[in-house]
Amino acid sequence: MNSARYLKRILDKLHSKKISVNSAFRELKNLPYENMGFVRLDHHRAFRKGFGEVVYCENKTHKHVKKITEALLKHKNPILLTRANKSLYDFLKKTFPALKYNEAGRIIYLKKGGLKNKKTVLILTAGTSDIPVAEEARTTLEVMGNKVKTIYDVGVAGIHRLLDKLPEISKANVIIVVAGMEGALGSVIGGLTDKPVIAVPTSVGYGSSFKGIAPLLTMMNSCSPGVAVVNIDNGFGAGYFASLINK
Amino acid sequence: MNSARYLKRILDKLHSKKISVNSAFRELKNLPYENMGFVRLDHHRAFRKGFGEVVYCENKTHKHVKKITEALLKHKNPILLTRANKSLYDFLKKTFPALKYNEAGRIIYLKKGGLKNKKTVLILTAGTSDIPVAEEARTTLEVMGNKVKTIYDVGVAGIHRLLDKLPEISKANVIIVVAGMEGALGSVIGGLTDKPVIAVPTSVGYGSSFKGIAPLLTMMNSCSPGVAVVNIDNGFGAGYFASLINK
Amino acid sequence: MNSARYLKRILDKLHSKKISVNSAFRELKNLPYENMGFVRLDHHRAFRKGFGEVVYCENKTHKHVKKITEALLKHKNPILLTRANKSLYDFLKKTFPALKYNEAGRIIYLKKGGLKNKKTVLILTAGTSDIPVAEEARTTLEVMGNKVKTIYDVGVAGIHRLLDKLPEISKANVIIVVAGMEGALGSVIGGLTDKPVIAVPTSVGYGSSFKGIAPLLTMMNSCSPGVAVVNIDNGFGAGYFASLINK
Amino acid sequence: MNSARYLKRILDKLHSKKISVNSAFRELKNLPYENMGFVRLDHHRAFRKGFGEVVYCENKTHKHVKKITEALLKHKNPILLTRANKSLYDFLKKTFPALKYNEAGRIIYLKKGGLKNKKTVLILTAGTSDIPVAEEARTTLEVMGNKVKTIYDVGVAGIHRLLDKLPEISKANVIIVVAGMEGALGSVIGGLTDKPVIAVPTSVGYGSSFKGIAPLLTMMNSCSPGVAVVNIDNGFGAGYFASLINK
Amino acid sequence: MNSARYLKRILDKLHSKKISVNSAFRELKNLPYENMGFVRLDHHRAFRKGFGEVVYCENKTHKHVKKITEALLKHKNPILLTRANKSLYDFLKKTFPALKYNEAGRIIYLKKGGLKNKKTVLILTAGTSDIPVAEEARTTLEVMGNKVKTIYDVGVAGIHRLLDKLPEISKANVIIVVAGMEGALGSVIGGLTDKPVIAVPTSVGYGSSFKGIAPLLTMMNSCSPGVAVVNIDNGFGAGYFASLINK
Amino acid sequence: MNSARYLKRILDKLHSKKISVNSAFRELKNLPYENMGFVRLDHHRAFRKGFGEVVYCENKTHKHVKKITEALLKHKNPILLTRANKSLYDFLKKTFPALKYNEAGRIIYLKKGGLKNKKTVLILTAGTSDIPVAEEARTTLEVMGNKVKTIYDVGVAGIHRLLDKLPEISKANVIIVVAGMEGALGSVIGGLTDKPVIAVPTSVGYGSSFKGIAPLLTMMNSCSPGVAVVNIDNGFGAGYFASLINK
Amino acid sequence: MNSARYLKRILDKLHSKKISVNSAFRELKNLPYENMGFVRLDHHRAFRKGFGEVVYCENKTHKHVKKITEALLKHKNPILLTRANKSLYDFLKKTFPALKYNEAGRIIYLKKGGLKNKKTVLILTAGTSDIPVAEEARTTLEVMGNKVKTIYDVGVAGIHRLLDKLPEISKANVIIVVAGMEGALGSVIGGLTDKPVIAVPTSVGYGSSFKGIAPLLTMMNSCSPGVAVVNIDNGFGAGYFASLINK
Amino acid sequence: MNSARYLKRILDKLHSKKISVNSAFRELKNLPYENMGFVRLDHHRAFRKGFGEVVYCENKTHKHVKKITEALLKHKNPILLTRANKSLYDFLKKTFPALKYNEAGRIIYLKKGGLKNKKTVLILTAGTSDIPVAEEARTTLEVMGNKVKTIYDVGVAGIHRLLDKLPEISKANVIIVVAGMEGALGSVIGGLTDKPVIAVPTSVGYGSSFKGIAPLLTMMNSCSPGVAVVNIDNGFGAGYFASLINK
Repeated sequence: MNSARYLKRILDKLHSKKISVNSAFRELKNLPYENMGFVRLDHHRAFRKGFGEVVYCENKTHKHVKKITEALLKHKNPILLTRANKSLYDFLKKTFPALKYNEAGRIIYLKKGGLKNKKTVLILTAGTSDIPVAEEARTTLEVMGNKVKTIYDVGVAGIHRLLDKLPEISKANVIIVVAGMEGALGSVIGGLTDKPVIAVPTSVGYGSSFKGIAPLLTMMNSCSPGVAVVNIDNGFGAGYFASLINK
Repeated sequence: MNSARYLKRILDKLHSKKISVNSAFRELKNLPYENMGFVRLDHHRAFRKGFGEVVYCENKTHKHVKKITEALLKHKNPILLTRANKSLYDFLKKTFPALKYNEAGRIIYLKKGGLKNKKTVLILTAGTSDIPVAEEARTTLEVMGNKVKTIYDVGVAGIHRLLDKLPEISKANVIIVVAGMEGALGSVIGGLTDKPVIAVPTSVGYGSSFKGIAPLLTMMNSCSPGVAVVNIDNGFGAGYFASLINK
Repeated sequence: MNSARYLKRILDKLHSKKISVNSAFRELKNLPYENMGFVRLDHHRAFRKGFGEVVYCENKTHKHVKKITEALLKHKNPILLTRANKSLYDFLKKTFPALKYNEAGRIIYLKKGGLKNKKTVLILTAGTSDIPVAEEARTTLEVMGNKVKTIYDVGVAGIHRLLDKLPEISKANVIIVVAGMEGALGSVIGGLTDKPVIAVPTSVGYGSSFKGIAPLLTMMNSCSPGVAVVNIDNGFGAGYFASLINK
Repeated sequence: MNSARYLKRILDKLHSKKISVNSAFRELKNLPYENMGFVRLDHHRAFRKGFGEVVYCENKTHKHVKKITEALLKHKNPILLTRANKSLYDFLKKTFPALKYNEAGRIIYLKKGGLKNKKTVLILTAGTSDIPVAEEARTTLEVMGNKVKTIYDVGVAGIHRLLDKLPEISKANVIIVVAGMEGALGSVIGGLTDKPVIAVPTSVGYGSSFKGIAPLLTMMNSCSPGVAVVNIDNGFGAGYFASLINK
Repeated sequence: MNSARYLKRILDKLHSKKISVNSAFRELKNLPYENMGFVRLDHHRAFRKGFGEVVYCENKTHKHVKKITEALLKHKNPILLTRANKSLYDFLKKTFPALKYNEAGRIIYLKKGGLKNKKTVLILTAGTSDIPVAEEARTTLEVMGNKVKTIYDVGVAGIHRLLDKLPEISKANVIIVVAGMEGALGSVIGGLTDKPVIAVPTSVGYGSSFKGIAPLLTMMNSCSPGVAVVNIDNGFGAGYFASLINK
Repeated sequence: MNSARYLKRILDKLHSKKISVNSAFRELKNLPYENMGFVRLDHHRAFRKGFGEVVYCENKTHKHVKKITEALLKHKNPILLTRANKSLYDFLKKTFPALKYNEAGRIIYLKKGGLKNKKTVLILTAGTSDIPVAEEARTTLEVMGNKVKTIYDVGVAGIHRLLDKLPEISKANVIIVVAGMEGALGSVIGGLTDKPVIAVPTSVGYGSSFKGIAPLLTMMNSCSPGVAVVNIDNGFGAGYFASLINK
Repeated sequence: MNSARYLKRILDKLHSKKISVNSAFRELKNLPYENMGFVRLDHHRAFRKGFGEVVYCENKTHKHVKKITEALLKHKNPILLTRANKSLYDFLKKTFPALKYNEAGRIIYLKKGGLKNKKTVLILTAGTSDIPVAEEARTTLEVMGNKVKTIYDVGVAGIHRLLDKLPEISKANVIIVVAGMEGALGSVIGGLTDKPVIAVPTSVGYGSSFKGIAPLLTMMNSCSPGVAVVNIDNGFGAGYFASLINK
Repeated sequence: MNSARYLKRILDKLHSKKISVNSAFRELKNLPYENMGFVRLDHHRAFRKGFGEVVYCENKTHKHVKKITEALLKHKNPILLTRANKSLYDFLKKTFPALKYNEAGRIIYLKKGGLKNKKTVLILTAGTSDIPVAEEARTTLEVMGNKVKTIYDVGVAGIHRLLDKLPEISKANVIIVVAGMEGALGSVIGGLTDKPVIAVPTSVGYGSSFKGIAPLLTMMNSCSPGVAVVNIDNGFGAGYFASLINK
């Protein structure tokens, strides 16, 4: 629900004396989130953003993630737990057997409802080492109700592998390009399609790739228009952004 | 037209002996572009990308831009000449009186056809100095047939100015955020909307903003999902990308 | 006035039917600022921040600054126009003869009311080239009603010049240290006083001082506790922050 | 005690022949600190800085820290041992059972005396991963005799969680903002309050946050005045600086 | 075989009805590579680049490398597996006993055919720590059929060691210079020879060598013409490039 | 002539008493160069490097360049004066009417002798703004006796323009790729050819291309083997290096 | 005079009642410097540092420099005014006809007394563009009473020019190496001599030399021991440091 | 022995037919060093540099270091093995019981001969964590025959600890300052003495000290003349350089 309408409804109730000044004030102050002590779960986010809170598991204890998962499930939210290792999954699985795990993408998830959208998001990677980031994007997209296709290992060093895929590329509605090293794939795809291209630099590479800075700069400076960039290795962010477009 | 279909049609003609091997070969080689000596005009781009070639005027002589404009007009393309100063506009205007100029955005343009899309793209700036970049985005969007709204000078230093605009923000289909200094506006908007947010860092600021690096990093690291980034001061790129989404 | 109380008062009026739902909604939305087309003047800031809007003049036309000044004077605000050159001052002076100018600090100002505070803010510079930044801080502080002392050119290359000033240093309530080159003065002062030290790196220096990065890093890494840092050359920011402490 | 007065008293004694030239010379040379071979304990610091020496434990052996603690306790100083792991605490606890430990903030401490100040320092964090840095600041403040409130996990991605806390924010006398990723919380708080805001960038984040550089730049370039910055992850420095202001 | 001729031959067959349109289309699309699920082996590369696919082993499982090796051997390709540790070699050796291992250069290989070229490539290192990178280059060159000479530990700190080697240097056809620390060897060799010099910066060094950035910059800025640079520690790239020149 | 042989010949003469010890010593010390006071002309370079001294004109006075040119002509050297503006050319032309000028490439030259080599060096640029750097390379190559072909404005944003040129690309013996912005052209060409590719990053671009750092990193990290890099905008260096290979 | 002895003498006078407590206090506080309002001239520096204050003229008005010169001459100090342009010299010359000017080194000077030292400081430059920095060092050394030799344009691209100078190099007592571009000369000289080598990186170079960062890093990472570095373009600093060693 | 004289002597022998051309040539080529396969031991260095080869142990196997030590001892050289851990020392000790170890400085050594110099080198550190680097410098200096004094933990945060040491500082002939964090100690000492100051930045510090870059920049930009810098953590380099000066 839109914040302005939410505000107006409370004011209406107040005006018609259905609620007191004090409770209106509290209402306005206490938008719906849940203070769990170590974290403030933002249930309201589903209203504002169209999708509930996603949990970044790095640096969180198993117990904390379990409690958060419990709270999210109580609200019938779909689940996305990113940067989750296998041992966390094994731990959560005991209590929540419905949870699924994409090991390559290091992401635990639970879908709610089927496909919301018939248009396809296509994910391309330049190399095989970029696959984990691509997989994080794929699961994010699927849990958010999108149809996903993937084509991996089509970097520009062997451009015919890529040209071979032109028909698939031309059918996609949104394209995610995942590439490390010099990240040139983003520019090449950007020049071949009329669909928005989301470029994800990865920290794959060595020496002067500087853990992703080289492909990040390449993608930022793409000579093809129609390319936007998300953070290094941020497969989740690319998937989320693609899903917003795909709606 | 899609490249694979284009290829297949030539092969069909060849198979049915409508064209010779040599002319098929020439055809395949000579995809439609125009070699003007100093530049190769990519008329084919309109097929591939849904919009013709855009001319970046910095470092080009008045005469060169005039010749390119001539060639583009011959093909009935809309015109977008970015980073164009007033004196270039005055020069071109004599020969092509239909051209328009957005002086703040330093962009010369000519629309073809009316609105292709009823959904709105909203452009926000953090400060008044970010307006030139925003205006470049605005004209780009309008020439590409989009409806645009702008809200300028709503940076986070006075967040109530921003909250006041929530209803407009919630009505947009795509949002462009233009911000220099620390660029925090991107994250804040990203947290308030369920629409894709395209963030444009600007070189506005001083000291350790390092000509746009500070807001670029801020936007890349946005804690709100749903935000992607284009190059520093790249209003055209943001507009173009937003138009692809808005279609 | 505090935002929460402001909100409550409107709700009270609404509850007692003094105002309609629609006008309450408008009120909540339209917190007091003034849309001047090219800029949104934040008159409300004086309530929130205890001091009205400060105008950064770089990149603004003389006419725009004049209009803003007019609007600010109408609300009886004190005036602070930073990064203002002499020609802007001469231009404004014709219409607003009461305006004063600190040429070294490139700042146009108008005080309202006398000293609000008897405690002294002390400004130190390492060299003579750091003085413009220090002067910007000084005028900012004075317009905000503070007592200011300055000691210039006491860098650590001649540490006896500094030790000589220990009594003055020990009398200050807040200390601003302005230094370029290697910026070591911040650490040394931080080790000698029990008052908060605000360090301002300047772009003074050459070669590997990298336009202020060297002193910025020095000050961030100060081995003395009690030192915080503002942006390179940001004399206004240091003065403003010192004034908040001094209250 | 102020250094100049200290100097004058020695000169007085010398003039009245209460002490010899040689002992005056020694006195002036030997300001009170304790040479422990591997470290020079600066007992004099309490006079100069209003608080005794704080020990940074990283890279120090358990034995060295024990000896230093012993020396500090002999002078009845309060104790602050930062970056201390649990095993160091367990080791010290055997000899000094009065020592306390804040495990999240990795800081061992011993208070002397009660609250010296009724005004509150408020510590905000953007996320849950910023809490360790915030806890280091909290204990530092409490040992120095300040009243502290904390509000954790109120980053700008869910800005309503923050607006809900406006009343608490408006009651604080000094505010510390701890944030990683893009660090936008500093600017937003800076725009909402008239109290000094101390911003602490944290190394929380990934990809192009570059271990804290991104939020550091964000905070340095804050478009809100009234914000100063301390080093990355430097919770102790923020607490110390806030305590100086709060006095 | 050259791509244009390849294309023409297919068109010829089509024209003479030896193949159908559909099979021509498939042929054009499916240039020869092998989709192994986790990787697309580019057998066509030997035609385009004169040498088959080289496998970078870092981050690949033993099993994956084994499968790739199998596929490469089936096509009678020579083998180059870079960044391979001893345990991978021991694993592969069981199945493919013909494989050889250069432990210093961490490279597994299998030559096909003898020397294709009588001209010598000379590899120089500045220090002993640069030898692993040099050895990676050496094996690459030998598997590609080149004659290689090496002179190690002749850095500029003892320039007479280098001058002693002038006759060998003057006999080489291509020279590779491998150097870390400050990388000055590249410039000195560049000034002494009329043969192309390929400079490889290494991550050897400490402090401000920044893992290879210092020698990379040195080599990029060489005051001697005739020097080109490959990535940090990229011995394979230097060897490959030298082999292309040496042909 | 090779230095070792040069040394041996002097020793032979000495041994056979054709020259005295002192004159041998002088000979060894005074290898042929010319001390002109403000510069030491290295006539010996032609022996060592196969080509005489090239003069970088930036920061040199017209008079100095004239004197150097005089000295070079006396030795019948070909002439290459790089980074030379039109006014310098007009000045020199009066005295040395045989000099030629490539205005785009800002290079003054005089060829000696015809083509020394039938193999072609191909120069590609990504955009039109990269042409000046390409022209500097072209003249360098031609003066050194090479056959040169150029294909300009074939960046990856319109990859069909590039594929169209595959036959020319496959005929070249050495390829120079000149590209700014994100510099992806180097990787794409590297993947299509079996000839050495010399990549030249240019400072063309804006925002985060950082005056050539972005394409430099892209090229250093090229996922295609067979690519080496020279300094930003260093067309002369690329031409010189290509000529060494082409011999 | 040594600071400790200075202190003791005052205490002696006080003890013997030759001076009062108050005047002793003043004396200790007011070490000899001269407050000229815009600058604090440190006459005491000659005691502490063995040489009076040196004036950096960049950003100082002609009038200010004149006043400072006046004050320095009154104390019979030698004069060193660095970064001084010709017009400043012409201005000062009218009042102080004894002043000399080194135009290449942009330094105004006045010697006092003859040679204080028979040992030679040798200054080498890699190229002709490094000469201004070398000349600043030369005049600094000569005014401080040192014997100086210079050898210019002996960079490593033509190493025989350098080897020719070995006898001169071996006679020097201290060596200053001035080099831009890649700065390799420092390492080479460091490997050839047993005297201290002071390396001065210069901002000469283009592209990735980054205004001196490349040679600075080269020199910091010199593989030859016996090399220390001063700031980019800091000829004065190198000369001053060399003079301290030469004493 | 000086290289030029060495050369002349060989020529003399040749002229007088005491040696043949061939043996003269060999002699000139084979300056005295020892090719050990994995390393070229530069025995000639003692002639050129006044001190034999120093061995950097990081990345060398125990066996290699043992062989090198053996060779060095055969030539009666003093021994300096830097970056050596305890286990290497224990290993070498068995064969060479005369070797000593400075554990803090991680340096194995063997002195030859007594003090060669009565003048003192003083080593200061800012903190206790800088001591390992200082100890590396100390042993280097002592093995090279210098008298050394050390004063540790006198950083500028407690500047009275430093002032107390002025008499010792004024007695030194050369001063080494070792400091991490912000490295301000170098500038302060530089302002207090007329002796050369060698500054060593250390990687001690956290957050934005960036492993030594912050103090490196501070020291490069020192506002005090008379300060030169060596690499981060390079205690050996500082000691070696100081020894050259002290001779």
